[in-house]
Amino acid sequence: MLNKVNMPSDVKKLNIDEKKELASDIRKEILNVVSKNGGHLASNLGIVELTIALVSYFNVEKDRVVFDVGHQSYVYKLLTGRKNKFSTLRKFGGIAGFPRTDESKFDYFDTGHSSTSISAALGMARARDLLNKKYNVIAVIGDGALTGGMALEALNDAGISRSRLIVILNDNEMSISKNTGGLSQFLTKLRTKKLYVSSNKKIKKFVNKIPFIGKRISKRIGKIKNGIKEMIIPKMYFENIGFTYLGPVDGHNIEAMEDIFRRTENIDGPILIHVLTKKGKGYKFAEEEPNKYHATGAFDLTVGKQSSGKLDYSAVMGNKLVELAREDKRIVAVTAAMEEGTGLSSFAKKYPKRFFDVEIAEQHALTMVAGMAREGLKPVIPIYSSFLQRGFDQVVHDICLQKLGVVICVDRAGCVGADGETHNGLLDLSYLRTIPNMTIMAPKDFIELEDMLEFAIKYDKPIAIRYPRGGEGEYKFTKHNKIMLGKSEVIKEGSDVTILGIGKMTARAMEVAELLEQDNISVEVINARFAKPIDIKTITESINKTKLLVTIEDNSISGGFGEGVKASIRNCNIINFAYPDKFIKHGSVPELEEKYGLNKEAIYKKIKEII
Amino acid sequence: MLNKVNMPSDVKKLNIDEKKELASDIRKEILNVVSKNGGHLASNLGIVELTIALVSYFNVEKDRVVFDVGHQSYVYKLLTGRKNKFSTLRKFGGIAGFPRTDESKFDYFDTGHSSTSISAALGMARARDLLNKKYNVIAVIGDGALTGGMALEALNDAGISRSRLIVILNDNEMSISKNTGGLSQFLTKLRTKKLYVSSNKKIKKFVNKIPFIGKRISKRIGKIKNGIKEMIIPKMYFENIGFTYLGPVDGHNIEAMEDIFRRTENIDGPILIHVLTKKGKGYKFAEEEPNKYHATGAFDLTVGKQSSGKLDYSAVMGNKLVELAREDKRIVAVTAAMEEGTGLSSFAKKYPKRFFDVEIAEQHALTMVAGMAREGLKPVIPIYSSFLQRGFDQVVHDICLQKLGVVICVDRAGCVGADGETHNGLLDLSYLRTIPNMTIMAPKDFIELEDMLEFAIKYDKPIAIRYPRGGEGEYKFTKHNKIMLGKSEVIKEGSDVTILGIGKMTARAMEVAELLEQDNISVEVINARFAKPIDIKTITESINKTKLLVTIEDNSISGGFGEGVKASIRNCNIINFAYPDKFIKHGSVPELEEKYGLNKEAIYKKIKEII
Repeated sequence: MLNKVNMPSDVKKLNIDEKKELASDIRKEILNVVSKNGGHLASNLGIVELTIALVSYFNVEKDRVVFDVGHQSYVYKLLTGRKNKFSTLRKFGGIAGFPRTDESKFDYFDTGHSSTSISAALGMARARDLLNKKYNVIAVIGDGALTGGMALEALNDAGISRSRLIVILNDNEMSISKNTGGLSQFLTKLRTKKLYVSSNKKIKKFVNKIPFIGKRISKRIGKIKNGIKEMIIPKMYFENIGFTYLGPVDGHNIEAMEDIFRRTENIDGPILIHVLTKKGKGYKFAEEEPNKYHATGAFDLTVGKQSSGKLDYSAVMGNKLVELAREDKRIVAVTAAMEEGTGLSSFAKKYPKRFFDVEIAEQHALTMVAGMAREGLKPVIPIYSSFLQRGFDQVVHDICLQKLGVVICVDRAGCVGADGETHNGLLDLSYLRTIPNMTIMAPKDFIELEDMLEFAIKYDKPIAIRYPRGGEGEYKFTKHNKIMLGKSEVIKEGSDVTILGIGKMTARAMEVAELLEQDNISVEVINARFAKPIDIKTITESINKTKLLVTIEDNSISGGFGEGVKASIRNCNIINFAYPDKFIKHGSVPELEEKYGLNKEAIYKKIKEII
Repeated sequence: MLNKVNMPSDVKKLNIDEKKELASDIRKEILNVVSKNGGHLASNLGIVELTIALVSYFNVEKDRVVFDVGHQSYVYKLLTGRKNKFSTLRKFGGIAGFPRTDESKFDYFDTGHSSTSISAALGMARARDLLNKKYNVIAVIGDGALTGGMALEALNDAGISRSRLIVILNDNEMSISKNTGGLSQFLTKLRTKKLYVSSNKKIKKFVNKIPFIGKRISKRIGKIKNGIKEMIIPKMYFENIGFTYLGPVDGHNIEAMEDIFRRTENIDGPILIHVLTKKGKGYKFAEEEPNKYHATGAFDLTVGKQSSGKLDYSAVMGNKLVELAREDKRIVAVTAAMEEGTGLSSFAKKYPKRFFDVEIAEQHALTMVAGMAREGLKPVIPIYSSFLQRGFDQVVHDICLQKLGVVICVDRAGCVGADGETHNGLLDLSYLRTIPNMTIMAPKDFIELEDMLEFAIKYDKPIAIRYPRGGEGEYKFTKHNKIMLGKSEVIKEGSDVTILGIGKMTARAMEVAELLEQDNISVEVINARFAKPIDIKTITESINKTKLLVTIEDNSISGGFGEGVKASIRNCNIINFAYPDKFIKHGSVPELEEKYGLNKEAIYKKIKEII
């Protein structure tokens, strides 16, 4: 059926059986492409019917749909004119893995980070009303994203807004890691697995009857059974903060959803539609382990995702932390819904009482660890670079102002590749460097990450270690000097030019040095290790000899490491290699490094030009 | 009675009548000092009895109290050994206006920004449990701060925590501006003014009976009256997310609060105590207009706070915005609970439908305006520099990634003086400069702010205008050239040295120039206007002539404007004047400028040394 469908108008023409067939075809296509290109699988498999119902009932030519986080927008892309490009998903020059307003007129708002959709939709709805326009604004948000503070701020504001706004709560029983928090338990009470799993007529009748009877509910409260009483609580909660609550509805039943969408027509003000879906729906492996199939690389469809056995920086951090935690009982680990992604699974299993998953709540997580450090624990909080942006104020105001011994492991720092603009960690060196009392490190390889983690935990003041997505590069370091506060490491001596690399770019510096030495240019290579404080002494000594300094970093040029070095060193001849002051689109890291002149050949060529 | 009390142990000895007398004395002392030094008045007058009850019942020698926002900690300071220093409140070298762990062992966590207390307290409680220690951890949070997303994230996480934690909800009917949101309405339902205002026995009996009967409530729900039904909702909400709910209790009745504190002894897990207080309590003017007495300068106690009639940057912005909004109906204004502080009161009055107060929710506010801009409105969002840190990710991910036409008015930029570390806006030039697609301006005076606002609204891409707290300096500019994107302004020509000022520091540059010219040093002065993009052309032309560049900014040195200039200009002799890479404590701005070598004499002297 997918071969007959390209645009929303095509979907609208289908009858219900054809829509079901379409759902099946879409699942196949998504499985096909994601198993090749990698991407977000479980959430897209879960949202197939909901998206068909949305596109079918609403007029997405003008009705604005904002997908929270946006990684679940593949189905929507397939149904809004991007079917033929779908095989290019997440590839360099291809379509993005997230909604992008510059990719399609059907994408109304760029997303990537969690919990933004209700705020954006409320702004759009208010604009629509002030400009006297007419269209629906629909935010589609998962129950996981609803634990993010800004989504709650937005619900609160929307609740008193007279603006007409539809929030679809895509309640799929889990955020990226399993939800554990109070709000999630609260929603769980509604779910009543029985209701969801079996769908016999008796329960269906109930679902259709219960949620719309408004004030009669309170009268019935004494009469009805416990499970049902719990169903009423979310309704009461959302209605108390000002929403009309519709649902719950089976999110794999297209007709039922279209029916409930129809009910919105005569309702004014904010509406919340509670939709129950199953992540990974239709692909056995993903249904069983949705977490494993949340974000995935390429894999074999028939056998499912297999462990590559390859180490990455996250795993190295996680393993070392388990080891250090054995010796020091004050070590605890905290994550914002990224237990697996940040390599904390074995820590969580080994030390369940010292492991805290606070859900998608970076702000809270960072202030919470400040509280822990204040009382003598040694909290380690691995967090993706681009999500750490959410907690910038908490790092400033709660951790650094009080000089508290928190270890922030900045994972996915630098260019992340396929996930693109919203997920690149290209700003952390810049924004962390501006914070008083902060220390920033970046390891040249796995062993150095282990050493830095050990150093950081002992340091007992605010400290960040940044490292990239994935594993080490091809260059292998053999020597690992002891980590000392603010000290860089001269890896290779030379006399014509000094190349100062930081983190993974130290290996790049060595590669470039090898090329230059072939031309008889003598290169001194320094591994910066610390982005703050900068090791002015070692750098100055080196450039007193070489007279030319080159810095290489996988961060934005603006306010980054290279600028910091330039600001610290008096009157020096310096060239900074970094990503430009732009948002960097998706593609593989080598493709992007080539594009932005950061591969070894480009850097070599540029240095040669100058010398 | 205050003369007999200095430490918590003194309070514990008092009988109830003496405590009441103490409350009265404390109010007098606070009125006395705040009317002289300025500070936060209404919130402290409202929390007198609650603090006495806290200090009296708990053992604050070891029980940790975390004051959310922290501006309501004056009473606590008076009762924890700081009575004799209280006259130095907010003065240079004196005690701070917020809890400071480096000021007293009784302050357990630094606060200043809103909504951090539950996160911090939860971290402390978890640490206590893991380290097998025994003490209470108590977060005191206002209903306004509870609208901040991170407080809700923390409630959610605390809800499932088995850690024992006491959250005191100081429900004083308003955050800084009047709460308008759904959550606030939700809490309002409980307040039932009648209950609060009158306190006849019948109602008291009710309050004592209702909140503790647990499961019986649902049985009674049909029988009891409407107002009472609404009282049950917050209880249901907090208990559903995992808290034991106690209250509501009259926050001006010390005995009642001590009673309710006693009830916590046998309760495990997180507890929420709902306390009702009145902001400004005991000072007529503040009771009537608590907003006006939220944060105040010095004033005459007998006649109350009078308008100084003096303009400040906030008012200039607000007035100009009213004028521009008359011509362009797409202009809207958004604030996060800072209507008065940011100068938006007249806009709110004049254009109520185009004015949005989203409560203390900076994150939501910034993404909401992105949604508005996406649909064709021209949102202007004035926000204090240090609070903008809360929305850093939203500026990056929602505004700048999509190049949306949002005007961020960065108020209280630079050194704010008496409010100290947590309120200084010394980082915004640094962190905003790192964001792709961002443009940053800073006006030299009021007229230039008006011109920049007009320019920014027409610009239709992400743009920030930063300006300081208060008014212009003494130096008066007579000429105001047209604002052009990325163009600085040569104010004064000269040949020996170029001084590049930004924002309010342009006046400082002129003052320094005057001093230097007395020594026959010819100074060229440039008003930068734009911190991003930097006007490389004009600056280069000038230093080609003068050979020495001096930059002056009221921002941190690290990653700031001066470093940006240094990074942009090749091989130039440059000196950057800026605040050091430290948190700057409270004091008057002139005192701090002197301390950090930023007054005209210090800059003059340093330049003379170099020339």
